[in-house]
Amino acid sequence: MPVAKKIQASIEKSSWIRKMFEEGMVRKAKYGAENVFDFSIGNPNLEPPAKFKEVLRDLAADTTAGIHGYMPNAGHLEARKAVAEYLSKHNRQAFGPDDIVMTVGAGGGLNVVLKTILNPGDEVIIPSPYFVEYNFYLDNHQGVPKLVSTRPDFSLDFDAIERAISEKTKAVLIDSPNNPTGKVYSKQDLDTLGNLLAAYSRKRGEPIYLVSDEPYRKIVYDGIAVPSVFDAYPETFVITSFSKDLSLPGERIGYAAVHPAISDKKSVMGGMILCNRVLGYVNAPSFMQRAVSKLLEESVDISLYQKKRDMLCNGLADCGYEFTKPGGAFYLFPKTPIPDDVAFVSALQEENILAVPGSGFYGPGHMRIAYCVDDRTIEKAMPGFERVIKKYKKG
Amino acid sequence: MPVAKKIQASIEKSSWIRKMFEEGMVRKAKYGAENVFDFSIGNPNLEPPAKFKEVLRDLAADTTAGIHGYMPNAGHLEARKAVAEYLSKHNRQAFGPDDIVMTVGAGGGLNVVLKTILNPGDEVIIPSPYFVEYNFYLDNHQGVPKLVSTRPDFSLDFDAIERAISEKTKAVLIDSPNNPTGKVYSKQDLDTLGNLLAAYSRKRGEPIYLVSDEPYRKIVYDGIAVPSVFDAYPETFVITSFSKDLSLPGERIGYAAVHPAISDKKSVMGGMILCNRVLGYVNAPSFMQRAVSKLLEESVDISLYQKKRDMLCNGLADCGYEFTKPGGAFYLFPKTPIPDDVAFVSALQEENILAVPGSGFYGPGHMRIAYCVDDRTIEKAMPGFERVIKKYKKG
Repeated sequence: MPVAKKIQASIEKSSWIRKMFEEGMVRKAKYGAENVFDFSIGNPNLEPPAKFKEVLRDLAADTTAGIHGYMPNAGHLEARKAVAEYLSKHNRQAFGPDDIVMTVGAGGGLNVVLKTILNPGDEVIIPSPYFVEYNFYLDNHQGVPKLVSTRPDFSLDFDAIERAISEKTKAVLIDSPNNPTGKVYSKQDLDTLGNLLAAYSRKRGEPIYLVSDEPYRKIVYDGIAVPSVFDAYPETFVITSFSKDLSLPGERIGYAAVHPAISDKKSVMGGMILCNRVLGYVNAPSFMQRAVSKLLEESVDISLYQKKRDMLCNGLADCGYEFTKPGGAFYLFPKTPIPDDVAFVSALQEENILAVPGSGFYGPGHMRIAYCVDDRTIEKAMPGFERVIKKYKKG
Repeated sequence: MPVAKKIQASIEKSSWIRKMFEEGMVRKAKYGAENVFDFSIGNPNLEPPAKFKEVLRDLAADTTAGIHGYMPNAGHLEARKAVAEYLSKHNRQAFGPDDIVMTVGAGGGLNVVLKTILNPGDEVIIPSPYFVEYNFYLDNHQGVPKLVSTRPDFSLDFDAIERAISEKTKAVLIDSPNNPTGKVYSKQDLDTLGNLLAAYSRKRGEPIYLVSDEPYRKIVYDGIAVPSVFDAYPETFVITSFSKDLSLPGERIGYAAVHPAISDKKSVMGGMILCNRVLGYVNAPSFMQRAVSKLLEESVDISLYQKKRDMLCNGLADCGYEFTKPGGAFYLFPKTPIPDDVAFVSALQEENILAVPGSGFYGPGHMRIAYCVDDRTIEKAMPGFERVIKKYKKG
């Protein structure tokens, strides 16, 4: 076999999101893009804020020498200072630039953190349903995912987490607001998780880390604020990107931050900076580091996503779909009216509606609807959603 | 231990280039930056070409919807088309956009290719001295470096390569113009290498790949042109970046291209696109993809580097240093007058001259001088170079 065995197997499996994407291509070619209602991918449909475009123009006109050259692998000091100041304002801790590594998006940041902490065979506990790309990220560094279920409303199940802790547990990986459920974990739940991990860390004399993937932190509704993970537990890494809140997923810019009081910080930060380099990222793209450091308090107009969520939730509730109304992100994760989510999603396809089976996120009996789309798409898809549920409810 | 054992070990070892960088910081603080002659790092001192700055301004003013969003993981079709057209012009093969993956620099491209092809324990033959960062890139994917020496003029030693081929050999990894030696491999040598690999590939019924890292291809002197690696062998990957020829190392933009006739192209390309995604790069930075696709025939003024090379070579030759005059890149790899290159480089440090011991590149008894620096730095360092060699030659 010419390519690595594992890679060949992964190509053959492909991902559900990918399959839907390809199905969508075929259907768009056949029926016209405007007649296919594509809820399959989390590609924000809102344009970056006006201020981003201003900053871009200013930076493009900047002729300072060396600004496209190498910098410390952790990133521009100015960018890290800006992030540290932002985090100090929004958490109880005082962050410095040396607590931050600028990264190639959250995908880059997660790989940097996981490579830093994982020995081969180390386990990472992940509440499911979850973003299955994490499986690849763990496998890149020979880590092992240990899935634990969440409660019916997708909140954390502490008994399940406690049962999953073993000698090999290196970290718990959470994502709030969650992809695919939109769940935002409460402050109380984060505190409980922090206390649980602190107790086990003390017992073993070595930290179990909390790794928090937070690209949707700013995308929350109904006045909800995502509680600080740093405030809940000191042995914490937060990874985020500007992909969703500034609508820049193609630009690959984000950062990883550590709690200022994390144990053995020198090794941890030294490891992260080394891993950022040796994984081939070297550093986060310079131009975008400079851009986002001027935009830390900015975001797209979140009320527009809230409007989409409400249109979708109201429409689907009227048709008889059941779901937990999400507090954040731009995903809805309704129950499929039949247990076979793959069959149900196929039936939606016949109406040119593209969703992703919940099984693709280890959440069978559900489907993910990414509603970061035109309002019109939500509106026009509704009759199809209704016809399909009626077909199954009748039976 | 909080961080992974391997990472802890790597932090403690650090790299020679890094050590020199840190020594440089200390000396610059103590003696003033203008009195420290830093030849330790390949950070191009020339600014990007004027046309790059024009293109950047145009792109920053572009308000097309979705241009900062996700695209296929392989990169923008327009960027891949432009690269394919460029490669078709400069090689004998006809490339298409599906032969190209846009990458996060050459570091990203190399990791994508290596993850695509390497099973754990697979060996990669590397002629030394070489860019030791390759060790990390191989280790990321559980590959094993098999070093082979080059001839005294740093050209390929085919007997050594042939002796190194085993059942586990998956690829030969070359870099021409070479870092750290500046060597450009001849067309005849590439043809010989291609024939050798073709013979072994036929024998085993499976290709041994040629992986060619070419970030310095455009940085060549005295009318030398770097021969096409694609023309020499079909089972070939070429990885490059715009870091050196457009002076954009901080922007992390490059590409990986496969020979249009590579075996099992569907698996190979599918694997590369998957690996670009799952390694957390996702895609190369969108903005820079669009920039470089308009700048494929551009480069900084190479004659300025040639002038630096000549100043350095003439100066060092006059002092009595011995070296092979490099045909490309911006590195000189002279012999150290004593076998202990670390001791010699330390003596240069006492003159505030920072070079990197050849041992750091598996080329002991040499040192690397990165001359992508101000002309003034070369000029002012020369008396120090002379004093140090005199001290040792006298002895």
